[in-house]
Amino acid sequence: MDISVRPAVVKAEETLDPDDWSGIQTLSHQVIDDAVGYLRNVRERPVWQDMPDQVRAVFDAPLPKTPAPIADVYREVSATVMSYPMGNIHPRFWSWYMGSSNFTGALGDFLAAIQGSNLGGGNHAAALMDQQVVNWCKEMLGFPASASGTLVSGGSMANIIGLTVARNVKAGIDVREHGVAAIKKPLRFYGSDQLHSCHRKAMEALGLGNLALRRIATDADLRIDLAALRAAIAEDRAAGFQPACVIGTAGTVNTGAVDDLQGLAALAAEEGLWFHVDGCIGALIAIAPENAWRVAGIEYADSVALDPHKWLHAPFEVGCALVRDASAHRNTFAVTPEYLEMTSRGLASANWLHEYGLQTSRGFRALKVWMSLKEHGVLKFGRLIDKNIGQGHFLNDLIEAEPLLELVATTSINIVCYRYRPDGFSGERLKALNTEIMLRLQEEGTASISDTTVRGEHCLRVAVNNHRTRQEDLDLLVRETLALGSRIANGN
Amino acid sequence: MDISVRPAVVKAEETLDPDDWSGIQTLSHQVIDDAVGYLRNVRERPVWQDMPDQVRAVFDAPLPKTPAPIADVYREVSATVMSYPMGNIHPRFWSWYMGSSNFTGALGDFLAAIQGSNLGGGNHAAALMDQQVVNWCKEMLGFPASASGTLVSGGSMANIIGLTVARNVKAGIDVREHGVAAIKKPLRFYGSDQLHSCHRKAMEALGLGNLALRRIATDADLRIDLAALRAAIAEDRAAGFQPACVIGTAGTVNTGAVDDLQGLAALAAEEGLWFHVDGCIGALIAIAPENAWRVAGIEYADSVALDPHKWLHAPFEVGCALVRDASAHRNTFAVTPEYLEMTSRGLASANWLHEYGLQTSRGFRALKVWMSLKEHGVLKFGRLIDKNIGQGHFLNDLIEAEPLLELVATTSINIVCYRYRPDGFSGERLKALNTEIMLRLQEEGTASISDTTVRGEHCLRVAVNNHRTRQEDLDLLVRETLALGSRIANGN
Ligand SMILES: Cc1ncc(COP(=O)(O)O)c(C=O)c1O
Ligand SMILES: Cc1ncc(COP(=O)(O)O)c(C=O)c1O
Repeated sequence: MDISVRPAVVKAEETLDPDDWSGIQTLSHQVIDDAVGYLRNVRERPVWQDMPDQVRAVFDAPLPKTPAPIADVYREVSATVMSYPMGNIHPRFWSWYMGSSNFTGALGDFLAAIQGSNLGGGNHAAALMDQQVVNWCKEMLGFPASASGTLVSGGSMANIIGLTVARNVKAGIDVREHGVAAIKKPLRFYGSDQLHSCHRKAMEALGLGNLALRRIATDADLRIDLAALRAAIAEDRAAGFQPACVIGTAGTVNTGAVDDLQGLAALAAEEGLWFHVDGCIGALIAIAPENAWRVAGIEYADSVALDPHKWLHAPFEVGCALVRDASAHRNTFAVTPEYLEMTSRGLASANWLHEYGLQTSRGFRALKVWMSLKEHGVLKFGRLIDKNIGQGHFLNDLIEAEPLLELVATTSINIVCYRYRPDGFSGERLKALNTEIMLRLQEEGTASISDTTVRGEHCLRVAVNNHRTRQEDLDLLVRETLALGSRIANGN
Repeated sequence: MDISVRPAVVKAEETLDPDDWSGIQTLSHQVIDDAVGYLRNVRERPVWQDMPDQVRAVFDAPLPKTPAPIADVYREVSATVMSYPMGNIHPRFWSWYMGSSNFTGALGDFLAAIQGSNLGGGNHAAALMDQQVVNWCKEMLGFPASASGTLVSGGSMANIIGLTVARNVKAGIDVREHGVAAIKKPLRFYGSDQLHSCHRKAMEALGLGNLALRRIATDADLRIDLAALRAAIAEDRAAGFQPACVIGTAGTVNTGAVDDLQGLAALAAEEGLWFHVDGCIGALIAIAPENAWRVAGIEYADSVALDPHKWLHAPFEVGCALVRDASAHRNTFAVTPEYLEMTSRGLASANWLHEYGLQTSRGFRALKVWMSLKEHGVLKFGRLIDKNIGQGHFLNDLIEAEPLLELVATTSINIVCYRYRPDGFSGERLKALNTEIMLRLQEEGTASISDTTVRGEHCLRVAVNNHRTRQEDLDLLVRETLALGSRIANGN
């Protein structure tokens, strides 16, 4: 048989590129037009809707074996994913804590994927932009230019980065080689009892254990109590532990409390502790002229976690860790294997960006942030943060003015904790009533809020981290809370 | 003064939405047209080009204070980021190890950002799709439906997930609470001396320390030596350590060697070790009909890391960790704070997806993978993997046929290690010669390859993880290596 054709030749031409570029081009114009309509009209749609069974069923389908026209694939995405989103792009979404994304950011993610670069490093434009956005983060927080930083998957990872550097710097041994079991005096970390759960996860992942993270009592406004912190440190020293790191929170997830960062910085300096700031919520208040005073002291931190996918409204994901001592940062993570040796010229003639965190390959998170900052300018982002904080206080005042509504925590920034409290309701019945209000607000598509428990008291929680929210939306929330509350309390 | 207008009112209308939706719509059509042209013509452009100084200078600019027209912002992105990419979307990019992205995947990232959902969890369509893609990953690898999994930032994080579960399961104590210092017998992990550097990072991050990861010798084909592994385990047991986990590699980054996964599975079962497979490169060979036999045994792993941003060519980032024992997985990471209590109805009436890893907020990585799998079908992805492996062997044969070229490692899959070796060159001179070949290939824009060191021998390294590569591209590489080698050896 004459077979000079090797198998590889036969299949060589198949790729993932479309056979018909003009077809995908036309479809993509449709995608753009739909996306523009989608965001332009978001206010007219319900915040959230439950999925019908036939939509749920789509996601039970097994792995597709054979091809489908891309137009059909897009139709299915439209009918499912686009029609039943979480809702955080809606002006009346105030659940948990996240940003509301933006169109320019989505273009950034598209372009990042088209040009496809790996931000593990290398001598190419995306890598320089990645570093530039890190530099801009330093500028926003008043961090020195000599600090280092890295863009990561979000605030949780940014906190892990900071705490890992803290652990390694304070270990007193080569903890990378020997592990934490070799540390002579067990390390202790401190944060308030309002600390975000990602710190617990970090302590566990880092092998220090949850018990090595002491939760310090908070004052009436849920800010860390410095005297209690000092006492805990002294107690631990006496018991043979090594106080290593204090975590200040600039905006707690529960109520938005901002710890006294200047006080913490001074205390950390005195006690020789690493000072990490979890600024996922509040670090960027530093760019908001009316409220920047609230986070004064953040510029003294040894490390900070901030979260552009929150108050810069970058589409998911992008967090950022900053570390004052760049070499401590690099020394915590850098490993350069044979196949990644740097060269004097060419693609490998630049610092490796993967030496500042746990990833090797890294996506191009910077572009969406860069494009939005260029388009709007940082001053506008500062105004939008001031606006959200103003809205938090506006809502606070509305609630205070309503006899049937009760504030459950002090409103510090943009998070408001309250409940509907008619006479005769308390404990579990009060919780059930407020839970039902929350669920009906969601189910009716009016507003998405969440709930929490503050000092044992269940409450509704509104986090206004949303560039589309208007004051009228908050008026509506209060009206609807009252209307639903009264209906439900009366058994309807 | 009559000021009934509260500050919040004044600024309420400013958002990040464009003032002029039709303007952004028109610009976005241009972005689409440019992107189509960009990928359609990628073969005609150089693989890589160094940036001129005026492009570099753009990235020195400080934080922009004031707005700029979005069209200008896009023009700047075109002139910088789009014009000087890493090059991995090019058919002749074979450096390090990464995928080449695809247009549909970029649309997926765009749509994910437009609808904006947070994949931390919740009852919405994106969350169901996230789980469906995890299920598809299980199907591809022959993992049981009862296993759990999570989409993460990449292979490094997927490995960290697996190793963290291994650590916690094998610790024999409540390591989440007490940390690794409380473990009675120190844990030992094993992998070959070809293990990816992310495992070292993982061991360090997890507080186990690099020394707790024993590198086991490899055979002539750079596969882990099972006898040596068995001996190391026995030695460690005798010395009071607790052998805890063996990491098999399905496709090493240096040379593409695939460990004997069936042998490792049997050994792990016998010795009571956790069996983790680093399948970032090779796990997906399981879907490639001609080569699936190479990774037989992967279905017995306790955990696997795979990497859709490699051989599924998803745009960065998306890795996936699978864990056979779903409750061990969840027990390693789940922490549910007050403000994330589940509800019986509404947005919070679904399992939290953040309970399976280190992130809280999570991006919608699934959509790009889903859209490509639907569009092409998994059979085509399998053929593309077979094609790349065929291309690796094709290149291997070309090199073998050239007297001046020398293979430096056995070609197992799609990674080829070779060098240009004229008479009279060895040691540092030979390395300098080959390095110069590599740099000129990059600088001339012909091909992007990288270099490495295998058993002390420096060599060029070609990793054909590229859906656009054609056989003619590899012919060209060999021709150019020979031409450049001869010129450089002769002092030009
Ligand atoms: C105070 C605080 N820290 C950390 C995080 C975690 O951030 P991410 O969800 O981006 O991981 C959050 C998230 O809401 C937070 O509010
Ligand atoms: C064998 C192996 N494991 C892990 C990784 C890390 O994967 P990622 O770069 O996606 O983090 C790589 C990357 O090339 C790899 O080749």
